[in-house]
Amino acid sequence: MNAPHTPPGATGAQDPTFANLQNPSFLQACLRQATDHTPMWLMRQAGRYLPEYCATRAKAGSFMGLATNRDYATEVTLQPLDRYPLDAAILFSDILTVPDAMGLGLSFALGEGPRFATAVRDEAAVDKLAVPDMAKLQYVFDAVSSIRKALTQADGKGRVPLIGFSGSPWTLACYMVEGAGSDDYRLVKTMLYSRPDLMHRILAINADSVAAYLNAQIDAGAQAVMIFDSWGGVLADGAFQEFSLAYTKRVLAQLKTTSTDAKGATVRIPRIVFTKGGGLWLQEMAALDCEVLGLDWTVNLGKARALVGGQENGPGKALQGNIDPNVLFAPPAQIAIEVARVLDSFGKPYQGGGTGPTHIFNLGHGISQYTPPEHVAALVETVHNHSRAMRA
Amino acid sequence: MNAPHTPPGATGAQDPTFANLQNPSFLQACLRQATDHTPMWLMRQAGRYLPEYCATRAKAGSFMGLATNRDYATEVTLQPLDRYPLDAAILFSDILTVPDAMGLGLSFALGEGPRFATAVRDEAAVDKLAVPDMAKLQYVFDAVSSIRKALTQADGKGRVPLIGFSGSPWTLACYMVEGAGSDDYRLVKTMLYSRPDLMHRILAINADSVAAYLNAQIDAGAQAVMIFDSWGGVLADGAFQEFSLAYTKRVLAQLKTTSTDAKGATVRIPRIVFTKGGGLWLQEMAALDCEVLGLDWTVNLGKARALVGGQENGPGKALQGNIDPNVLFAPPAQIAIEVARVLDSFGKPYQGGGTGPTHIFNLGHGISQYTPPEHVAALVETVHNHSRAMRA
Repeated sequence: MNAPHTPPGATGAQDPTFANLQNPSFLQACLRQATDHTPMWLMRQAGRYLPEYCATRAKAGSFMGLATNRDYATEVTLQPLDRYPLDAAILFSDILTVPDAMGLGLSFALGEGPRFATAVRDEAAVDKLAVPDMAKLQYVFDAVSSIRKALTQADGKGRVPLIGFSGSPWTLACYMVEGAGSDDYRLVKTMLYSRPDLMHRILAINADSVAAYLNAQIDAGAQAVMIFDSWGGVLADGAFQEFSLAYTKRVLAQLKTTSTDAKGATVRIPRIVFTKGGGLWLQEMAALDCEVLGLDWTVNLGKARALVGGQENGPGKALQGNIDPNVLFAPPAQIAIEVARVLDSFGKPYQGGGTGPTHIFNLGHGISQYTPPEHVAALVETVHNHSRAMRA
Repeated sequence: MNAPHTPPGATGAQDPTFANLQNPSFLQACLRQATDHTPMWLMRQAGRYLPEYCATRAKAGSFMGLATNRDYATEVTLQPLDRYPLDAAILFSDILTVPDAMGLGLSFALGEGPRFATAVRDEAAVDKLAVPDMAKLQYVFDAVSSIRKALTQADGKGRVPLIGFSGSPWTLACYMVEGAGSDDYRLVKTMLYSRPDLMHRILAINADSVAAYLNAQIDAGAQAVMIFDSWGGVLADGAFQEFSLAYTKRVLAQLKTTSTDAKGATVRIPRIVFTKGGGLWLQEMAALDCEVLGLDWTVNLGKARALVGGQENGPGKALQGNIDPNVLFAPPAQIAIEVARVLDSFGKPYQGGGTGPTHIFNLGHGISQYTPPEHVAALVETVHNHSRAMRA
């Protein structure tokens, strides 16, 4: 390597983006800067696989009772960090809070997925949609501020950064039209193919709503934001670009890229885009105005790095992912083998003093509620140890 | 184009593979030979969207009652051909007949998916598995012979070719371990990651069973065979190659590539492999010993053609697919737009006298039971008309 022999990450140490944090490794990797290990967090890390989460949810009475209560949301956000040395926290909330604020009436029956009281299936229903008053989502922004406070240590620094998030415009539209989860997306695709004009109207409103929502999360203290395009991968080639990617772009074009910290310094806010099932469109996603692309387990990390990871001090995306969450059902020895495969597939991350290809370890999708918590401990330990050893 | 000005398909007209058929266009396209239109059929074309299918199923009493009765299976196989000018027939059966013959007890409750009475979840259950006696699947081979007879016209030629099929070794294993459909594949992946040795044993038995099964279908009269790797796309990169692709290869290595027709002439038997969600692995699938690759709607046909469709008189795969079945819920005018997009995405198929890139139109997955039958008529008409116009 031709990089100067600067200690990894040292050049950015004065950057307030990192200086405010005890463990800035996640943000450093988002910004394609060197770290001494591969930072990691888990999608849905505060969830039903943790008995302490189930206990808090029982106190809250319902999922929305949990998500709309600042103190409960703070409590469950921190629970996985107290168990495991994870490198980032993610706001406890749901991807569907925005359409709920539009008045569609979100609820979660026990053991079932989300459901809207009102589905958006015809022109009259679309006519009623508008970007919601962000005051209706104040509970989310309050939770963000509360979590930031809870993460702050005696030295005034945060333990780890806090990630804010939203569903993508297309993913929100899927739920808004279907009214619930779906296995064939028949209703939303019927609208897409029959009345593309209506679908575009929904998506434009969703995009502007998501942008306002994420910007308010950033104002409240989110240190990175992630757009979950959970259902982008169900679209046909062509339809993905027109009905998902274009509106993710519309969100990104409106997002703040910096914020002001408590001391008045400017900090950078990395943006992550994750399209489940989107591996075939990676090159098109490389043109997005974001710092990180999330990948599911079907993608080969080495190939993705070659396609979109960039070169030293050139443009490129940090990559986040992508172990199959089902690996966590295997015994720890097998988990270690699969972790090494994923890390080795990306290869040695950038170690110089500028920018280069970096990797953030994560699952390729949310963690299963049936996951044994002690297997997660094994996963985190192996990721940190193996990724340190790779750099040696 | 530098091809000689031979009428399309003329060089192969004496080939008994085609001479036995009134409409050989499907087999010609499978073998990368020119046709005057893009041949088409639909996955699950004999299905619940057709009222006449529902009437026959009601007479049969159950799905398995339908599938195991030669006369009913023949009747429903021909129903879509009587409604629409499709270019191929596909045996009416289920992908799970092979594990049923292994003794696992397949059933279909009304309105639900398949279910096995016995699931294969531990070493003791794997110990009991073996390649089944093909006599237990005689009802399938009888149906193949009966359908071939029913397709034969007054001139002794078949109307269209008959496709036989099976689930892939991995897809069968998914159902065998899960015991039914799944939305997370937790049980089968737990075995895969925890006890890869057991999974390999199941897959080896499945591969040898599928090969024997498809060869017996060919002996009974199937004129092409298709392997449905419906769940290959749920595997992680690496796992797909090891647990799905390797066993599809093992099937293909044992398959007959020719058969002997009623007059004693040798006919070729094209082999189609379809991995739903397999678009990322297309280049690896190009090395398979088969003639056709099936694609779902996430794949760009033009890019796929460039990757694996080959050149004039060189090696390459014919491509089959890939419109989103949900397009069929749109009005006929919108269906026509989407059909044109798919055909144009592939581009003008080969028109010379040798071999070159060809396209077989299909859905990217099975047709939905909610599809309006008159929309299918519009689809077939547009595919034939637009693809003829493209060649002009």
